[in-house]
Amino acid sequence: MTRDSLITLDSVWRGAHVATMKGGQYSIIENAAIGVRGGRIVWIGKAHDLPAYQTQHEHDLGGGWITPGLIDCHTHLVFGGNRAGEFEQRLNGVSYQDIAKQGGGIASSVRATREASEAELVASALRRLKSLMADGVTTVEIKSGYGLSLDSELKMLRVAGKLGDEWPVTIKRTCLAAHAMPPEFDDKDAYIDYLCEKVLPKVAQLGMADAVDAFCEGIAFSTEQVARYFRTAESLGLPVKIHAEQLSSLGGTAMASSFKALSADHIEFIEESDVKAMAESGTVAVLLPGAFFTLKETQRPPIALLRQYGVPMAIATDANPGTSPALSLRLMMNMACTLFALTPEEALAGATIHAAKALGMADSHGSLEIGKVADFVCWQVDSPGELSYWLGGDLVKTRVYEGKQSDGKNSQGSNRLGKNSQGEPA
Amino acid sequence: MTRDSLITLDSVWRGAHVATMKGGQYSIIENAAIGVRGGRIVWIGKAHDLPAYQTQHEHDLGGGWITPGLIDCHTHLVFGGNRAGEFEQRLNGVSYQDIAKQGGGIASSVRATREASEAELVASALRRLKSLMADGVTTVEIKSGYGLSLDSELKMLRVAGKLGDEWPVTIKRTCLAAHAMPPEFDDKDAYIDYLCEKVLPKVAQLGMADAVDAFCEGIAFSTEQVARYFRTAESLGLPVKIHAEQLSSLGGTAMASSFKALSADHIEFIEESDVKAMAESGTVAVLLPGAFFTLKETQRPPIALLRQYGVPMAIATDANPGTSPALSLRLMMNMACTLFALTPEEALAGATIHAAKALGMADSHGSLEIGKVADFVCWQVDSPGELSYWLGGDLVKTRVYEGKQSDGKNSQGSNRLGKNSQGEPA
Ligand SMILES: [Zn+2]
Ligand SMILES: [Zn+2]
Repeated sequence: MTRDSLITLDSVWRGAHVATMKGGQYSIIENAAIGVRGGRIVWIGKAHDLPAYQTQHEHDLGGGWITPGLIDCHTHLVFGGNRAGEFEQRLNGVSYQDIAKQGGGIASSVRATREASEAELVASALRRLKSLMADGVTTVEIKSGYGLSLDSELKMLRVAGKLGDEWPVTIKRTCLAAHAMPPEFDDKDAYIDYLCEKVLPKVAQLGMADAVDAFCEGIAFSTEQVARYFRTAESLGLPVKIHAEQLSSLGGTAMASSFKALSADHIEFIEESDVKAMAESGTVAVLLPGAFFTLKETQRPPIALLRQYGVPMAIATDANPGTSPALSLRLMMNMACTLFALTPEEALAGATIHAAKALGMADSHGSLEIGKVADFVCWQVDSPGELSYWLGGDLVKTRVYEGKQSDGKNSQGSNRLGKNSQGEPA
Repeated sequence: MTRDSLITLDSVWRGAHVATMKGGQYSIIENAAIGVRGGRIVWIGKAHDLPAYQTQHEHDLGGGWITPGLIDCHTHLVFGGNRAGEFEQRLNGVSYQDIAKQGGGIASSVRATREASEAELVASALRRLKSLMADGVTTVEIKSGYGLSLDSELKMLRVAGKLGDEWPVTIKRTCLAAHAMPPEFDDKDAYIDYLCEKVLPKVAQLGMADAVDAFCEGIAFSTEQVARYFRTAESLGLPVKIHAEQLSSLGGTAMASSFKALSADHIEFIEESDVKAMAESGTVAVLLPGAFFTLKETQRPPIALLRQYGVPMAIATDANPGTSPALSLRLMMNMACTLFALTPEEALAGATIHAAKALGMADSHGSLEIGKVADFVCWQVDSPGELSYWLGGDLVKTRVYEGKQSDGKNSQGSNRLGKNSQGEPA
């Protein structure tokens, strides 16, 4: 064989088994090798089947299991302050009402987020982002929604974009301006008008969001209000997602499905007709066990129905200061197994390929297949089920982002492939 | 002032607030300084009150909160294999009975622990120990109990001792030979005889345990059997602890209190008379929310009664392969708050001063006071309540063990003060 017949690879990774997660299952390759070029997987299979190649970077992982990089498809990672003080007050017997009277709850996060500078928001979100990254996450969705005015929502989205530009992680941005009522408005319809007329058009024009989200609940916005907001998003070419049926059944999930929503999130109270609608529209069910746990909810999402209708289930941290101060996606996988009785295979699919689908990026991310982005993690485990089994702990051996080793904990700014301004792989 | 009038300190730490945990409360010192000499705290107070001193090592922590190093007072950290496979089987619908028929459950951990070499047990436990250390733990109790024969119990205790000799962490060893029935015995009384005649005397003679523990439950040993085993421990000068009242009320806690047990652990089913007995004997209540969570228990320990009678509550991981694969003590603090409604202050006391008491070492560890060992952690938080608030994540800024900086994640073997053979500060 002549030198010309060798494949040229930027890097080759071997010495571990792979759970590719193709098709939402482990889809295991034992004693595997992965060949990377241009940040993408160009070869994957049994190491002994690897054809002749030349590369500058040969990596022997020395055992363990490789999975796709984890994808946290629902977070509120950017916010000012935190609500540990309220957490402590409640456990010391202060009532929710008294905390609200003091200006607590989401209003306090809105106040702190508005007051914080962009640099302060980057710094505080970065600490949380690093925790996620160190635990194996390579893509994070970040929602706005603590600004609730044009300027402060744009500020949050800029901060999220900056994190993605500067760190070895892909950030997907979601405009959640319909999260709560801002203090400037009394009338919910008037606020929705403002969002449709001022906020969403500007966000779309600036290309600052990959999707639009709303909180559809008695304490937030009605199904009709959210539908109006979604029609604007649709007209602007932005896909939608929804926080729905967490505390009660209002019909938000079915309505969102009629907009072919990327995902319906929480959905503890959905019924069979909602599940059918999600199956038909290809809407992903995003399960948020951290919020379920923190709020001591008792109504579980209808896992059996979701399985029966083949609705993909994703799992996310819902990282937020009030109802899910969660900084580990792997812990959410454990909680999805323990609290919702998902299997570890479903939990891993939920944090990889199905999470990618919930972000509209399953063509390029979420499983390890030829042509997809080379985001993967090698874990110090004897089986992929261990990722859901352990409560806490540090299992990451090597984290690879766009084909390059970049362990979250040691990341020192951008050690990465070129990105265009949207933070997408070039 | 002449040079002779200066205090000489090995190191000074400043630039952070301190929750000393003296008396089981935050006992806060804002803008504090800690002076260390010989691995002990020789000065602590407001930084501006620090008298003139000379030192080679001046550390500015640059913000955050210092707490005592966390103490995990109940773990089964040394074991062969793991039970992720069973966890996965159960979630895939395989019954407990079928898993037991396959030789699963604790029997599989006993088999794997007996088969493993000492070096293998050290290596696998070290990965788990490093996770605990990276999360701020400076003292870990490790139980035997997967050997269930003289040689294999001694092997487990040697492994635990080795971890303490080689890493910047204090290991307390507990002989839990009365954990389950070994395959060689049919008769529980005969096994207890064996423990009293062969195992405990040898363990005591070799000085390989700091305490003796037993599992008192219908599926394990009766109150009478454990009492007999405790009488032997007592005669050998070893303090006792007990796993009791986890699944039912058998009277183990009251019996253990009559032996002035250091702690009674789990205790979901104790009643007021048990709590009174514990208060009188000074027995600590060790709460294990990881096991409660993993087993989906519904009966909570009687927190109100424990408070009423002033029984100190400790919190531990119960790290073990079957019922609590937990590798973060901070996560257990969150779970103690969320599942048992402890306050964050109680949770932190439970992982520091009360945990020290559960190990009989409250005179030297568990709070930051003059004369105590300088084990402490500086956390990147704005309030000590954040330690219980976040679910997962990496909050440790600096970990100090016996007066020396030794961050768990970067520890490269012993960077420590001299230790004598018991692994105690010299
Ligand atoms: Zn959310
Ligand atoms: Zn235990």
